[in-house]
Amino acid sequence: MFQSFTATSSPDQGPPRLAALRHHLAAQELTGFWVPRADAHQGEYVAPRDTRLEWLTGFTGSAGFCIVLPQVAGVFIDGRYRLQVRSQMAPDHFTPVPSPDTKPGDWLCEHLPQGGVIGFDPWLHTSDDIDKVEKALQGSGITLKPCANAIDAIWPDQPPPPQGQVHPHPIDLAGESATAKRARLAEMLRAAGQKAAIITLPDSICWLLNIRGEDVPRNPVVHGFAILDDQGSAALFIDDAKRTPEARTHLQGVSLAAPADFAQALARLQGPVRVDRATAPLAVSQILSANGTEVAWGEDPCILPKARKNAAELAGTRTAHLRDAAAMVEFLAWLDREAPGGGLTEIAVAEALESFRRATNKLRDISFDTISGAGPNGAIVHYRVTHATNRPVRPGELLLVDSGGQYADGTTDITRTIAIGPVGAEERACFTRVLQGMIAISRARWPKGLAGRDLDALARYNLWLAGQDYDHGTGHGVGTFLSVHEGPQRLSRLSDVLLEPGMILSNEPGYYREGAFGIRIENLVVVEPAPPLPGADARTMLGFETLTWVPIDRRLIDAGELSAGERSWLDAYHAKVWELIAPGLSDPAKRWLEQATAPL
Amino acid sequence: MFQSFTATSSPDQGPPRLAALRHHLAAQELTGFWVPRADAHQGEYVAPRDTRLEWLTGFTGSAGFCIVLPQVAGVFIDGRYRLQVRSQMAPDHFTPVPSPDTKPGDWLCEHLPQGGVIGFDPWLHTSDDIDKVEKALQGSGITLKPCANAIDAIWPDQPPPPQGQVHPHPIDLAGESATAKRARLAEMLRAAGQKAAIITLPDSICWLLNIRGEDVPRNPVVHGFAILDDQGSAALFIDDAKRTPEARTHLQGVSLAAPADFAQALARLQGPVRVDRATAPLAVSQILSANGTEVAWGEDPCILPKARKNAAELAGTRTAHLRDAAAMVEFLAWLDREAPGGGLTEIAVAEALESFRRATNKLRDISFDTISGAGPNGAIVHYRVTHATNRPVRPGELLLVDSGGQYADGTTDITRTIAIGPVGAEERACFTRVLQGMIAISRARWPKGLAGRDLDALARYNLWLAGQDYDHGTGHGVGTFLSVHEGPQRLSRLSDVLLEPGMILSNEPGYYREGAFGIRIENLVVVEPAPPLPGADARTMLGFETLTWVPIDRRLIDAGELSAGERSWLDAYHAKVWELIAPGLSDPAKRWLEQATAPL
Repeated sequence: MFQSFTATSSPDQGPPRLAALRHHLAAQELTGFWVPRADAHQGEYVAPRDTRLEWLTGFTGSAGFCIVLPQVAGVFIDGRYRLQVRSQMAPDHFTPVPSPDTKPGDWLCEHLPQGGVIGFDPWLHTSDDIDKVEKALQGSGITLKPCANAIDAIWPDQPPPPQGQVHPHPIDLAGESATAKRARLAEMLRAAGQKAAIITLPDSICWLLNIRGEDVPRNPVVHGFAILDDQGSAALFIDDAKRTPEARTHLQGVSLAAPADFAQALARLQGPVRVDRATAPLAVSQILSANGTEVAWGEDPCILPKARKNAAELAGTRTAHLRDAAAMVEFLAWLDREAPGGGLTEIAVAEALESFRRATNKLRDISFDTISGAGPNGAIVHYRVTHATNRPVRPGELLLVDSGGQYADGTTDITRTIAIGPVGAEERACFTRVLQGMIAISRARWPKGLAGRDLDALARYNLWLAGQDYDHGTGHGVGTFLSVHEGPQRLSRLSDVLLEPGMILSNEPGYYREGAFGIRIENLVVVEPAPPLPGADARTMLGFETLTWVPIDRRLIDAGELSAGERSWLDAYHAKVWELIAPGLSDPAKRWLEQATAPL
Repeated sequence: MFQSFTATSSPDQGPPRLAALRHHLAAQELTGFWVPRADAHQGEYVAPRDTRLEWLTGFTGSAGFCIVLPQVAGVFIDGRYRLQVRSQMAPDHFTPVPSPDTKPGDWLCEHLPQGGVIGFDPWLHTSDDIDKVEKALQGSGITLKPCANAIDAIWPDQPPPPQGQVHPHPIDLAGESATAKRARLAEMLRAAGQKAAIITLPDSICWLLNIRGEDVPRNPVVHGFAILDDQGSAALFIDDAKRTPEARTHLQGVSLAAPADFAQALARLQGPVRVDRATAPLAVSQILSANGTEVAWGEDPCILPKARKNAAELAGTRTAHLRDAAAMVEFLAWLDREAPGGGLTEIAVAEALESFRRATNKLRDISFDTISGAGPNGAIVHYRVTHATNRPVRPGELLLVDSGGQYADGTTDITRTIAIGPVGAEERACFTRVLQGMIAISRARWPKGLAGRDLDALARYNLWLAGQDYDHGTGHGVGTFLSVHEGPQRLSRLSDVLLEPGMILSNEPGYYREGAFGIRIENLVVVEPAPPLPGADARTMLGFETLTWVPIDRRLIDAGELSAGERSWLDAYHAKVWELIAPGLSDPAKRWLEQATAPL
C-alpha cells in the first residue's frame, strides 16, 4: 500500500520541542522564529527532513506555518484545517490562528508591541512572502532576520535529505527532447534580454530536463535546483547519490553538481537573471544581489510551456485514463457487490481501490491520498481517513471517493459519489445540481481569450438557484506524470490565466452539508480547439475534451430536472464509457457496467 | 419629436476646415493637434459648442478622436463606427484608424519619425489619457504640448456654451438630501486625509446637489465643475444664466460662481485634493500642482454612492418602468396592427414609439436616440436611422427596437425584437438562445462578492454551445433620471466592480448576423438581497429584481428548447406583465396584451 492510515504525529511531541526552540532562540538573541510548512521547493509534499512544522507542533496539514514568540506560538491554518489542528496540537502551548483572515504582520504587531527580531530561514520563504510581511511591519520596531534554520539546530535525529533515484522520462511520453525545450526557453530569455533563469520548482526541473524522481510521495519529482542560461545550457544541482547510470547518460550535456554548490554558482552568474518572486527562495535573490548581479523578476519560464501539453503528453494521458477508468469500474462494481452487506469501512474502500489500480501493473504511485468519506465525513472537503476516524459505509448514506493514479504516461484524478442503498430525496436533488454544473463545464465552448474565472459560474449556477454553493474552486491544472495540482490555469474566480489548448484541468463541482453528506463529481478535461459546427460564427472557439471515462451514479440523478441537452450529454458519455472501457473488464464488472451506463 | 432623422454633417465640410487648422498650427509652431470627441465632462453627449470633432471631420459618432498632422489626419474610431465613418468623411483628407488596435502613440511615432510637437487642450483630456500617450512617446522626439484650443481659434460661428436651466431634483425622488450626501462624502474625505475633492462629471454633480439640467440632449445634466471640501461645503461653478430662482433657493448653502472662476478656486485650495485621473481634465491637476498643492489620485467620490440606489430612487424607477411599459405595450400592439399591411419604415416606428411615450405626459426626453433596425439594419449594433438609411419594415424580417424614456422619477432602457409576419427557423433558433441567456441573468442568484465578470458567461452559454456570441457587454449600469449609461458596475468580462444591492443594470444579450438580422432582448434589473429559500445554505446571496414589464415576442420562441425552469420564468414574467400593465391600457392594447402574455 502507498497510503497509510496511521497518525504520524501526536499532540504530546510539541511542548518539549517548543521549549528547546525557545531556549535556542534566546541564545541566538532572536525574539522569535518563523517555521513554515514549506521546503525550498514550495511543493505540496515535503520530505521527512522538511516536516519541521509537524515535528514542532504535531500539525500535519499541507499548508500553514507557526510563528514562535516567547509567550505564544501561533499556528496559522486555513479553513480546511480548523478542526484537524485542534486534535493534533497541545492546546496550552500552540494557538491556532485563522489564515488568511489574520495576516502574520498584523499578528506580530499585536503580540510584540515593543518590537523584536524574528528569525527565518531564507531558503524556505519566497521573496513575495517576506516582502508582504516586511511591508506590514513598517514602523513597528519588528524586523525579520534571515538566519540558519533554528529547527534543524535542535532536531537531533532529523532525517537526511531525500536520495530518490532520478529516471529519464522517455521521449515518446515527453514528446519534446530536453535539448529542444532548453533551446525554446533560451530564446525566450534572449528575447527578454536575460542571461539566465533560476528554476527551483521540482516539476519545472523535471519537465525541462525530461526526468522524474522519487524524493517525495505522490509527486514523482526530483528535489534540486537548476540554472538555465540564454544559450540553452543547464546546470542541475542534485545529490550525487540520486544519479543513476541511466540518468547520467540521459543528462549528458547538462552540468551536474551538488546542491551545496548552488549558492556558489549563483554568485558567479552574470545578470540580468530571471527569478520568480512567487516561487524561488528569498536566498536566491539575496545571493545574486549581494554579488551585484541584477535580478529580473519574472515567472519561472517553464510554467506556461509545461501547462500546454503536447500531442505525445495528451496521447499518454488518454491511455493512462483508460487504464485508470478500467480499475475504477472494477472498484465500483466491487463496491456495489460488497457495500449492501455492511462491514465495509472507509479504509477498506481506499485499500480496495488502491489494489484495483495496482492490478494494472502500471501504477507508480497514487497521485494523492485517497479521500474516502462516508456520510458526514464526505462533507469534510480534505478528509484523510485514519484508523481514528474510520467510519463504516452504511446503507442510506453517500460515499465520496476522490482518488487518482500516477502512471508513467499520465496522472489521473477522479471523484465519484456513490449511493450506498437507497438515499434521500435531498441528496438526489443536490447531486443532480452538482451534476448539471459538471455537465455545463464538460459541454462548454467559448470564444478564445477567456480565463477560468470567466467559466466558473457555469458550474455553480444550478446550485446558486437553490441557494447553495461550494467553497472551493471548480478545477485545478493537472500534470502528466507530475503533480496532480499543477498551475498556472484553474477554473476558479481567482484565476485570470487564459485557457489555452493543451491545458488539462479538473472539473469538480461539489456540495457539502456539514454533519450530513458530501457530494463531488470530478472528471479531467483538456482544452482543445472547438470542433466546427453548422451555423456557427466565424470566430475561434475553444472547448473541453473529456479524459475521464467512468460512470456517474444514475441512481442519484433526478432525470426530470435535466434539460434535453444535459440528458443527451450524459447518455452519450455513458455510451462512450461502455464502448471504451467494457472490452478489458472482468465479467462481473462488465455486467455491472452495462447497467451503470444504460441510457437514463 | 426629440429625435431627428436628418444628417447633421456632410463630408464636404471637412477639407476647408482642415486646411484652416493646418494654417493656424503652422503659425503656432505646432506640428499637429489632437481633437477629441470629448468635452471637459467626458460625457456621452456634448453641447453644440463642443462638437469639434464633427465640425472638423464630419464624423458624428459618440466616441473617437482625430490627430491632425501636416500630411495626414487620422480619425481613430472603434469597431461600431467602421462603416459609418467612411460615408461621413472626405476620404482623400481624413484617414480612418482602427481603435483601440492602433494606439495614438504608436501611430504618431510611425508618422513623425523626425519628432514634433503635438498640441492639445488640457481641459478636454484626462490625466490617464495623456499619461498613456506620453509613455508611448518616450524617446521618440515627439512631445505633447498643452495649449489653447486650436479648433475654437478657427471656428468663426462656434455656438456659445449651453445655458440650460437648473432644476431642483425633489427629495421624495432623490431619497437623501444634498446636505446629507455632502456630509457623507466629507466623512469619506476626512477618513482618507483629503481636504477636498474635485468633481467634473455632470451626473456626479447632479446627484450630489440633487439638481438636474438641460445642457445636452438625452441626459438631464448640468455642465459645470464642483469642489467639495472635507467639512461638506460645496462650490458649484456654472453660468449665471442657468440659475433659476428655484435653483438658487434649492442651492442655498452651496457657493455659486462662474465657470471662469474655477481655475482660481483650484489655485486657492489646500491639499491633499482628490482628483480622478480617469475623469478629470488634465488641467485640474496641472493647476493644483503648479500651485504646490498635493494631488491625491482617487475615484470621483460620488460614483459608488450614486450607483447604490436608495429606496426612494428604486420606488421612482419602478413607477417610471410601469409607465414606460404601458407606452411600450400600446406601441407593440400598434405595430402588430400596422406592420403586416406594409408601408411602415424604421423612422415611422421610432416616431410612433416616441409619440406613445409622449402620451404619458411625463416624458422629459428620450433616454437615447431610438434604435429602430429592420432586417439587416438590426445587425448594426449602434444603428441610428436617418432619412438616408431608412428601410421599410418588411414581412418575414425581424425588427429590433432599442429605446428608453427619461422621466423625473427614473430612466428606462428596453430592447424588444419583433417578428414582422412569419420569420425563418434560424431567426427563431437564435432568438431562443438569446432569450435563454437573458432569462439566465434574470433568474441568477449568487453569493455576494462577485463582479459583473463573474456572471457574464451565464448570458452567453447557450449561444456559445451553438458556436455563436455577441461582441458587446451583457449589461451597463443605469441612472435614475440621469445617464442611461452609468458606471461603475457592468455585466461584462471587463468589469471587476462588485455587484451591490441597489445597483441598476441592463440585461441585454444579443445576436447579430451581418447582412441578415439582429436580435437583442433587454430588461433592466436591480441587484437585491436574494429572497430566502427552503434548503438554502446559510450564506448571503444576491439576486436581481426585474424592473421592465413588457412582453417578449412568443412567436420567436422555440418552446421545446427551453428548460422547465426557463419556461416557467417566462410564463410567470408574462403573467406579471398582464397583472401590472393591463389595467391602464386602451382596449385594443389590452386585447393584444392578453394574447401576448398567454402561457407558452
